Formats: sequence, C-alpha cells, structure tokens
Amino acid sequence: MKITKAVITAAGRKQRTLPLQTLIDRDGAEKSVLGIIVEEALRAGVEEIGVVVHPGDETAYAAVAGDHAGRLHFVYQETPLGYGHAVYCAQSFVGADPFLHLVGDHLYVSRGETGCARQLVEMAEAEASAVSAVHATRESLLPYYGAIGGRRVTGRSNLYRVETVIEKPTPTEAEQRLIVPGLRAGHYLCFFGMHVLTPAIFDILDQHIKARGKQGGVTLSAALAELAKHEQYLALEIQDWRYDVGVKYGLLTAQLALALSGQDRDEVLSKLLELLAVRGLRADK
Amino acid sequence: MKITKAVITAAGRKQRTLPLQTLIDRDGAEKSVLGIIVEEALRAGVEEIGVVVHPGDETAYAAVAGDHAGRLHFVYQETPLGYGHAVYCAQSFVGADPFLHLVGDHLYVSRGETGCARQLVEMAEAEASAVSAVHATRESLLPYYGAIGGRRVTGRSNLYRVETVIEKPTPTEAEQRLIVPGLRAGHYLCFFGMHVLTPAIFDILDQHIKARGKQGGVTLSAALAELAKHEQYLALEIQDWRYDVGVKYGLLTAQLALALSGQDRDEVLSKLLELLAVRGLRADK
Repeated sequence: MKITKAVITAAGRKQRTLPLQTLIDRDGAEKSVLGIIVEEALRAGVEEIGVVVHPGDETAYAAVAGDHAGRLHFVYQETPLGYGHAVYCAQSFVGADPFLHLVGDHLYVSRGETGCARQLVEMAEAEASAVSAVHATRESLLPYYGAIGGRRVTGRSNLYRVETVIEKPTPTEAEQRLIVPGLRAGHYLCFFGMHVLTPAIFDILDQHIKARGKQGGVTLSAALAELAKHEQYLALEIQDWRYDVGVKYGLLTAQLALALSGQDRDEVLSKLLELLAVRGLRADK
Repeated sequence: MKITKAVITAAGRKQRTLPLQTLIDRDGAEKSVLGIIVEEALRAGVEEIGVVVHPGDETAYAAVAGDHAGRLHFVYQETPLGYGHAVYCAQSFVGADPFLHLVGDHLYVSRGETGCARQLVEMAEAEASAVSAVHATRESLLPYYGAIGGRRVTGRSNLYRVETVIEKPTPTEAEQRLIVPGLRAGHYLCFFGMHVLTPAIFDILDQHIKARGKQGGVTLSAALAELAKHEQYLALEIQDWRYDVGVKYGLLTAQLALALSGQDRDEVLSKLLELLAVRGLRADK
C-alpha cells in the first residue's frame, strides 16, 4: 500500500475564504493557508492533490498555491450536501487507491521533525489499513469534533482498532460508547482532521447520500462508523497540535503557534512581550 | 470645508492581497482588512470611498467589503508608476473637493473613543487646510516612512506647520532638515498613513508624473514637499497606533493590537498566556 494522492476539502460555506488567508510558516516564509496544507501533504510523500472547492473558487486557490499549483486538481462540490458529500466528490480523482484526506480549515504543528501527515501515512502504509489521526481531547471540547471508541492494539501505545465513530457526541453518549481503556480520565479520542481512507469509503458515502437525498448533511463520521464494520480501521494517536483556523481567533492562534515553533520564535516572542507591555497590562484598558 | 470623500490606495504589487485578509476587529466581528479601513473612513464622516486597485481586483475587493460595498468606487491604476501616481489616479473620483486619503496596508488603533481618521478630518475642517497625520517616531524607523520638518503652531501642542517632507530620510538628512523644536531627542515626525489633501495635490502630481515618464517611482512625499511651498499644509501629531500590515508578522501584530484594545481582550489574553505556557517558555524549544 502506497499513498500518492491527497484530498483537501474546502467547499464549506464558512470555509471558502480560509485557504486564501496569508500566514508566515515555521520556515519564516509567507504562505497561504492552502499552501501550508499542501506542503503538509507533500511532505507525507503525496504526489497529486485533489482540492474540493465551490465552483468558481479554483482561480483564487490556484493563485495562492505558489509553486505547488501544478500538483493541484480541482474537484467541484456543486451542491452543499455536507462534509461527507464533499469527500465523495473526489471519487473520480482518487480512483481505486487509498488516499490521504486533510480538511482545508486545520493547520498542524508537529513537535518533532516528522510532519503529522507523514506519521499517519507511514502507519497506514505499514498496516495496509485505513487510519484516522486522533488526539486525546478533553470532554468539554466534544461539541467540536468527531470522536472514536475502540481498543488499543496489543503492544502498541498509540494505535487503536476503531469500533465506533460518533460526530460531536454528547457527554452521555461519549461516556456510554466512547470510553477507551487506558486513556486519561475525562479524555476522548477525537479526530485530528486527517485520515488515510480506502476507496470503500466512497461506496458507503454513496449509500448515505442516496438515503439523505436533498436533505444533505452527510457526515464523514457516519461513513467511518460504517467502514469500521466492514474492514480493519485504525486510529493513530498523534501527540502534536492541530489548529482549527475556522473558529474565532483561529488564524491568530495558528499563526502564533507556527511562529513559536519556527525559526522566527525569538523575534515573535519579543514582539509579543512588547505589545503586552504597552497594551496588555494596562489597568485602565 | 467638509470632507465627504476618501481615497484608499491598494494597487501596489506587494499590497494587492492584503485588503482581502480577514481579521477580528475591536468589536469582535470578523472583517477584511479593507472593511476595517473603510469603517475607519466612514467613522470620520466620509460618504463615498474611491479604492485605487490593480485592474481585475475589484470583484474580490467588493466581495469582502460587506455592507459597505455600495459606498465603494473602484479606480484603476493601469501602470505601476508609484504611490504618488496611484493617488493621482483618483483625481476624477475626487473632483474639486478636499479628501481623506488612507493607505490600504495600514490599520489604526485609537486609544480613546475618537478614531484616528476622525481626529484628522476634524482638524482639517477646522483649519480649512491640508493636514497629514504624523507620529513621533524613533530615528531607527526612518527607513520605513516619509517624515516632515516644520514648526509647532503657536499655542498648539499637537499641530505643526509643515516646511519640508522627505521620503525615507537618512539619519543625516533627518538631523539636518527634519529636526522639529520641542520634540523628544532622537525622534522625528513620520507619516501615520493618513492625510487630508486638497485638489492642488493633483496638479503637482501631474507635473511629477510627466517629469518622470515611464521611469515611474512617483512618491507622494515629493508632491507634499511641493504642496508645502504653495499653500498652508499642517501636520497633526496623533498619539494612537498604526500598524503596517504589509511587513512580516504585520497582520499578526495588528490582530493582537486590535484584540488587546477591544471587547475580546480577556479572551485573547488568556489564549496568549496558554500558548506561551505550552509553547513559548520551553527551554528545549
């Protein structure tokens, strides 16, 4: 199993202008959010990237992809039937191979040298299996994520066999169905925003799309719950950080995290302290 | 004298995507950089705004202007002959009236309730004169700004009669020609990125554009130096802050400044401290 294709979804209504935003990456270079996500995928060994967009957005996206524009294949989501439907739109681009999937509104910052997507792809290739990246997440954050239930693979500290997937579970649902033995109390394994999927996901999504019809709201989580019943589906616990740039102050937080982990760390720290000295600590506001 | 029109220049090569970037304003609402600048102008009492753009950029700009798109008139700078030329392109929009001019890559944060542009427009209307906003700036920052020389208007603490304008002066030039009596040592009055100009500026720019021809590089500072010889031209010292979002980490710094001066101050301060605790203070980086 070798992963050569990635799919980035960026057609969601509130998500469409996010990939165009400009940030400074860890290497000190100015890049678009799209460019940073594309490089995350390329560092994982991917060669071609399908970007699921709202029709008409492709010109602006290609313009901010910089040197990587030639790697991009635009795929259109004509009707907004949900995130699962957006992934489904990439079927003809993906074909019969497993693929890496990244969402267009998350940025990743790894602690070490190996990028998050690379860790995930290496695991998927080694296990020849669909694998979702997950992160041990406090119960209070469950309303923001899909979460899995499952059991640790014997002898592995960071690998789980997925049994259940629930999108944005309530605390009660989580307590009843998503407790993972060995995890810190009050924590659940929530999606990290990246997956390696097998083409079987498209057959499942196809059924869900037909079942829901014009109602839409097709989630990826429901399809992944189904996938777990049909084939081996694993979860890799990632120790790094993900930043949802779609939430309020998400871009700010992601930019600070990139800067504080990168080569401009000292410069940005001193800018921060200067600002805080002048503006942050005044009692009169 | 009543100011009802503003001109925002945003056609510069490195400047064109800046107005499209998204930030959270002091009121906690998500806006484009363009939207924040437009609101600064509207709060100063302006009714119509001419935006000088590179041809083709107008659609994207209108899309991010939100509720204010109807106030915008796009003006094209077909050839990149310099910042002074960009201002000149707005002549037919402006007509025979004085106008407020803001640059498309600066954001302003006022200490008090009154916006920076409003302070400037009120002064220009009261004095019936061209007025540039200036800020007492350390000598080390001279390479980034236009600076003025002049004398304080008798009995006024923050108003100067401009005698000289030099674009990005060397320290020697500044010491010889731009010392302003009464200013703190090592400080000069540098432009703040906003001006109220009289239509006389267009005649001067016209001459400079013809003189330089295809060579371009027409500066506003040279035209302002000329203006000072022909009519009363004042400088208002502003105590607030300006942020050049076009420099590296300029968007980050502006976003932090907006947040720390706005209604989300406490939320952002605690996010900052959390990030610094996890990422900023680790000795191992």
